Amino acid sequence: MPPLREHRRATKTVTHLADGRELIYFDDPGAPPRRPRADRRELPSRDTIPELRWDALAGEWVSVAAQRQDRTYLPPEKECPLDASTPEYASEIPDPGYDVVVFENRFPSFATLPSAPRGPLPAIRPGDMLNRAAGRGRCEVVCFTSDHHTAFSGLSPARVRTLLDAWIDRTEQLSTHPDIEQVFIFENRGREIGVTLTHPHGQIYGYPFIAPHLRAQLDQARAYEASCGRNLFADTLAAEVAAGERVVQRGEHWTAFVPFAARWPMEVHLYPNRQVPDLPALTEAELDELSRVYLAVLRRLEAVFDDTLPYIAGWHQAPVRRDRDLAYLHLQVTSTRRAPGKLKYLAGSESAMGSFINDMQPEEVAALLRDAKIVEP
Amino acid sequence: MPPLREHRRATKTVTHLADGRELIYFDDPGAPPRRPRADRRELPSRDTIPELRWDALAGEWVSVAAQRQDRTYLPPEKECPLDASTPEYASEIPDPGYDVVVFENRFPSFATLPSAPRGPLPAIRPGDMLNRAAGRGRCEVVCFTSDHHTAFSGLSPARVRTLLDAWIDRTEQLSTHPDIEQVFIFENRGREIGVTLTHPHGQIYGYPFIAPHLRAQLDQARAYEASCGRNLFADTLAAEVAAGERVVQRGEHWTAFVPFAARWPMEVHLYPNRQVPDLPALTEAELDELSRVYLAVLRRLEAVFDDTLPYIAGWHQAPVRRDRDLAYLHLQVTSTRRAPGKLKYLAGSESAMGSFINDMQPEEVAALLRDAKIVEP
Repeated sequence: MPPLREHRRATKTVTHLADGRELIYFDDPGAPPRRPRADRRELPSRDTIPELRWDALAGEWVSVAAQRQDRTYLPPEKECPLDASTPEYASEIPDPGYDVVVFENRFPSFATLPSAPRGPLPAIRPGDMLNRAAGRGRCEVVCFTSDHHTAFSGLSPARVRTLLDAWIDRTEQLSTHPDIEQVFIFENRGREIGVTLTHPHGQIYGYPFIAPHLRAQLDQARAYEASCGRNLFADTLAAEVAAGERVVQRGEHWTAFVPFAARWPMEVHLYPNRQVPDLPALTEAELDELSRVYLAVLRRLEAVFDDTLPYIAGWHQAPVRRDRDLAYLHLQVTSTRRAPGKLKYLAGSESAMGSFINDMQPEEVAALLRDAKIVEP
Repeated sequence: MPPLREHRRATKTVTHLADGRELIYFDDPGAPPRRPRADRRELPSRDTIPELRWDALAGEWVSVAAQRQDRTYLPPEKECPLDASTPEYASEIPDPGYDVVVFENRFPSFATLPSAPRGPLPAIRPGDMLNRAAGRGRCEVVCFTSDHHTAFSGLSPARVRTLLDAWIDRTEQLSTHPDIEQVFIFENRGREIGVTLTHPHGQIYGYPFIAPHLRAQLDQARAYEASCGRNLFADTLAAEVAAGERVVQRGEHWTAFVPFAARWPMEVHLYPNRQVPDLPALTEAELDELSRVYLAVLRRLEAVFDDTLPYIAGWHQAPVRRDRDLAYLHLQVTSTRRAPGKLKYLAGSESAMGSFINDMQPEEVAALLRDAKIVEP
């Protein structure tokens, strides 16, 4: 378990919403002390949590979260639940302003009710084809700014630094949660890929298992280490740096590259130059550079095509209890944009068989990103 | 390797297109003999094939097929390349009419050039992070009808029976191809999921490897058989039949059900009631029932919502050389439609981490499909 530390520079203030969900303000350094206002809404109490079902053919848990069908879907701008509250409208955030705010998702894919039992998932009964479990864990929403009309790429490096403090705090806190095995921090951006709220925000999933893609990477890394004693992620980064042709940006502490076997038309991986398990393990110098290089990577991606870029950005962090020496923190940003106005869709080969076809040459994408004209953060 | 058999009842006629690609007509029983016309177009010769790149972190091949960027994208209706040719317009199909026709994809994800070497993929060099291989194999297009304006669900059972003959023939033929390890037959339907041609058609991928999802299922089935001596797919079907609440339709030879751990808002699996490896292993009686039950399943899916249903339908067939006793032929139909006008998208959890959240209760979906009013095929 990683050491618990206080957030680095941002000011943290914890409160609760009307239905008991936790809400946490992270204010930029120098902000005046916050006295959080009460949530004045009447909200139904939370009494159901999603169910996990074991897919015996795939060997994976699937979350069945039927109550999410009712979640807020492209609300009118005056009713954005991620704006700060006003005298006329009570949003999810009771205060009249905020810098970064994190709260428990009202429509979660995983949730632990205060009264419910906690602890690891039950073992799979192999002869039983219908294994179920409570979908415990935690889903949080992270608002990057109270400004409804900007995007992550429009934040200041100082605000990204506050956001990094929030992500570190949440990783540390959720890593101590008895139901949670992995903390996944991500942003879905763009209506074209199904984002139902346009306010700049991301999410955090505290999974009660190690998710399939991370598990597959750790399996590969374990076999690789057994065969040659080296770390697979570190050797991947070293091979990309040595080849050079797919490197997008390389700094003192971070390297961004289009991976050799990219699956998506636009795909960038961002690695720290030394192996660390998760965001809380980063040094101040690494965090400071990250707050600028993260913005630069997004701005490069957005500069390539002449329309709004839909993307998914997700942090691969080590599991909270296992394989922490095998994992290697990195960010993966992918976009389905393959040309102006054209998206790549997952069709039969990718969706049904898991076999990816990429229509873009990774080396050409890397060149486009390197040459992109951006405002340096 | 399965025994080679002639197609069952349809009449097969083989010809070639101007660039050397194979084209095969499958005509309904009783059609007059076909004397295939020559392709009168001038087409550039085929000289490049896609590249496979090994994703060392996932342990999977990715196909990089940059030449596919130029493929035909939502052409005007008069220029549909899947219509029969007319005196004014030369399509991909030279004859003025057809029942079912199969031809090599002009923009393939896998291809074997006549002059190229053949055989299994090279072994992965474990210390090398940049393993590449030629993307050999075969991609075929299957037109279900010359009628541009219908859909699979609008075909007659007799035409579906001709299509089954075509699928059986292609499975048998591609199973003898030295580059191919798996024959995947599928249909992508609906502009909303990226289909670039609206003419009713499907595809066949002859993969030079066993695709990740089939490989994962076979790994699970192998472990299950080792633990209890039974077949995992057969026990899955038996458990669904015993539970009953997710069964959509059960006949003498076939059973359709919504799987217990469905990943998609709409998902139906269709299993033969006895274990067979692939389509060529089916009996006449099984094929006859399949031609009606396949139509009924699609019509039920399309009847639930009041708008056009996008879907992916794919056949899980046994690998052509390995694990044929472990596999169990079945069809998987999935749709991203979660409500009228609303799609489910793969966002951060599914796309980046492989962890699926389903917003629909499988038992409720099964009830909707059972109760759907359809025209019986």
